[in-house]
Amino acid sequence: MIYITRKEHFNAAHKLFNPAWSEEQNNATFGKCANKNWHGHNYDLYVTVKGAVNPDTGFVVNLKDLSTVIKTDVTEILDHKNLNMDVKGMPVMPSTENVAIFIWNILNPKVKEMGAVLHRIKLYETDSNYVEYFG
Amino acid sequence: MIYITRKEHFNAAHKLFNPAWSEEQNNATFGKCANKNWHGHNYDLYVTVKGAVNPDTGFVVNLKDLSTVIKTDVTEILDHKNLNMDVKGMPVMPSTENVAIFIWNILNPKVKEMGAVLHRIKLYETDSNYVEYFG
Amino acid sequence: MIYITRKEHFNAAHKLFNPAWSEEQNNATFGKCANKNWHGHNYDLYVTVKGAVNPDTGFVVNLKDLSTVIKTDVTEILDHKNLNMDVKGMPVMPSTENVAIFIWNILNPKVKEMGAVLHRIKLYETDSNYVEYFG
Amino acid sequence: MIYITRKEHFNAAHKLFNPAWSEEQNNATFGKCANKNWHGHNYDLYVTVKGAVNPDTGFVVNLKDLSTVIKTDVTEILDHKNLNMDVKGMPVMPSTENVAIFIWNILNPKVKEMGAVLHRIKLYETDSNYVEYFG
Amino acid sequence: MIYITRKEHFNAAHKLFNPAWSEEQNNATFGKCANKNWHGHNYDLYVTVKGAVNPDTGFVVNLKDLSTVIKTDVTEILDHKNLNMDVKGMPVMPSTENVAIFIWNILNPKVKEMGAVLHRIKLYETDSNYVEYFG
Amino acid sequence: MIYITRKEHFNAAHKLFNPAWSEEQNNATFGKCANKNWHGHNYDLYVTVKGAVNPDTGFVVNLKDLSTVIKTDVTEILDHKNLNMDVKGMPVMPSTENVAIFIWNILNPKVKEMGAVLHRIKLYETDSNYVEYFG
Repeated sequence: MIYITRKEHFNAAHKLFNPAWSEEQNNATFGKCANKNWHGHNYDLYVTVKGAVNPDTGFVVNLKDLSTVIKTDVTEILDHKNLNMDVKGMPVMPSTENVAIFIWNILNPKVKEMGAVLHRIKLYETDSNYVEYFG
Repeated sequence: MIYITRKEHFNAAHKLFNPAWSEEQNNATFGKCANKNWHGHNYDLYVTVKGAVNPDTGFVVNLKDLSTVIKTDVTEILDHKNLNMDVKGMPVMPSTENVAIFIWNILNPKVKEMGAVLHRIKLYETDSNYVEYFG
Repeated sequence: MIYITRKEHFNAAHKLFNPAWSEEQNNATFGKCANKNWHGHNYDLYVTVKGAVNPDTGFVVNLKDLSTVIKTDVTEILDHKNLNMDVKGMPVMPSTENVAIFIWNILNPKVKEMGAVLHRIKLYETDSNYVEYFG
Repeated sequence: MIYITRKEHFNAAHKLFNPAWSEEQNNATFGKCANKNWHGHNYDLYVTVKGAVNPDTGFVVNLKDLSTVIKTDVTEILDHKNLNMDVKGMPVMPSTENVAIFIWNILNPKVKEMGAVLHRIKLYETDSNYVEYFG
Repeated sequence: MIYITRKEHFNAAHKLFNPAWSEEQNNATFGKCANKNWHGHNYDLYVTVKGAVNPDTGFVVNLKDLSTVIKTDVTEILDHKNLNMDVKGMPVMPSTENVAIFIWNILNPKVKEMGAVLHRIKLYETDSNYVEYFG
Repeated sequence: MIYITRKEHFNAAHKLFNPAWSEEQNNATFGKCANKNWHGHNYDLYVTVKGAVNPDTGFVVNLKDLSTVIKTDVTEILDHKNLNMDVKGMPVMPSTENVAIFIWNILNPKVKEMGAVLHRIKLYETDSNYVEYFG
């Protein structure tokens, strides 16, 4: 069993604002992240898959294929988008946690089709904050 | 003469969309950056000032003071904001070039008051793109 | 279960010198790290906590709160300090290993009070050396 | 139990070309990585070992010794080499996966001799691709 | 006048070996870099252009266009190649200095066609070594 | 004319404390940097030299030689030292500015002996602060 990771990235706008709450409660909880006109981030996404090494290729999976899947099924949907407004199926609160789970749910069946197992989604919102989800 | 640089950062939403143009022309020129609901970035800002070294302190300027000025006069205005909607005086096109010039115009007189000379604004929009402005 | 990590940093002096040993044994074991007048590092600290996602916020914990706890209870005590002389409760040998365990012991009950579980302290002494402690 | 990691690096040429396959199949699978005259990388290698902290030193292992072992037994063999041609015992397919396993097999007994346990080999081929092997 | 920089990268094999010299002289001068079977690097390339800001776009040049030119005219030629064997017009000694000048000579007329001025080629061979060429 | 840069690093303790001033004035000016028992940093040092490319080697200077000079004449003197106590000739105030000038004065004649010209000393005290000195 060996683990291989591919890094991709996307840039998106979002805000953290719970519509069931008052503006005061939103500001008290989310601070500047609740700014009504949004803010944004350069997100760095690390996708880790695991499996056995194919002796013919030396690969767990072909990283070109993994990169293509991530770009087609994740980046294309999130890059240069507003996570609150533009992304079908995104939870109301597009926190880093929820975006990571959203990405896991997309990629988990795709990685299975490639003959490997999705191990981890690691998502950086800034250099100082990241989330890891293992399913 | 010696040069000292302080790094700060801010996260903001923006879009590149010229309202004098058709949507077609905007998309052809700006591509995904024209997405009507905005996208965003983690901006890294490097402010370089120059001057003589004060023999009592070993400093060109006190970096605590420079950091405070940048935070009060620049970061406070741009961080967790929408550059198209929330920032008074920002040009209609908040490209990295125009944001860097905007920051220069704020900081240039402030650095003079500190007894030094503003040398350069360097602004990263992503790890792959940055702008430098020398006035 | 999801994992979220916050990065903070502190700058400190230290030396590795076992007072129960001769100077020769100290130099043979610790080399330049035993320099009697200390040396120092920029330490990067990554604190990982785990828990369930709160559906109202999208958060495991509020990172503003986690950051405040780390700054108040760890950084305030270690930043711009001499780890051998200035820090109450620090082991005699302030190796990266022992500093990481020291930080774990401070943060573990604090994270519990926040309703989450401390998962890992990861501490970089330099770009080339880091320690991980899981309790 | 605590984990400590040392980073080292080496620069090497390689190609991914299965001699049992046709050139067409190699190109279809490996793309540019199959270029017959090789290409190359700056590899970053992170070696993680685990063990108890020695109370006399504050160390799991002395990082100077770990660094020396990695340099003598791994870097000396791989640095500024052609992984397909110059390295005895390297698999025919010097993929990042296989190079990581190759390094594990060298270091596992050496770390045991140092009184610790090899936990992980993490090998970056580029900033966007890395492999982890846990034995 | 404002300066904008785009980062691209390529991976290549090379060796430093002067065919007019003896093997001894090559080894004495270039050390491990003279390894006859080549070694390789992940090269990071920063291309800086300067010009006035177009008020309609906020751009000196459209970075999508600059990126396309770099990829088509430089990366396509150098990526996953052997700099000594595969690149027409490359000097016999593919040092970082000579590769940077080679790239300048390709991009200088192309940037002129885009209505801007090429200011600098900055080329990293490793994290510890880089070259800058200003024409 | 081409510019080449070599990165080295050293770890050191220091404090900013002007002995001609009261403790109050020191604390007001230098804040935590005046801590009497010192603190420390991982310093990153970038040395840039310029000259013509030697057609036989492709080099401005041999980076192995430049690295050796920096290590012998700078790093050996500053690494794992207390800049206030252990370094002969260091100004009383070991600010980043003064350390950069100190390094320039050592390396300037040495680079001349190598047949090149010292262009710049760039010294990072932290990821957020750096100084550049051009003589």
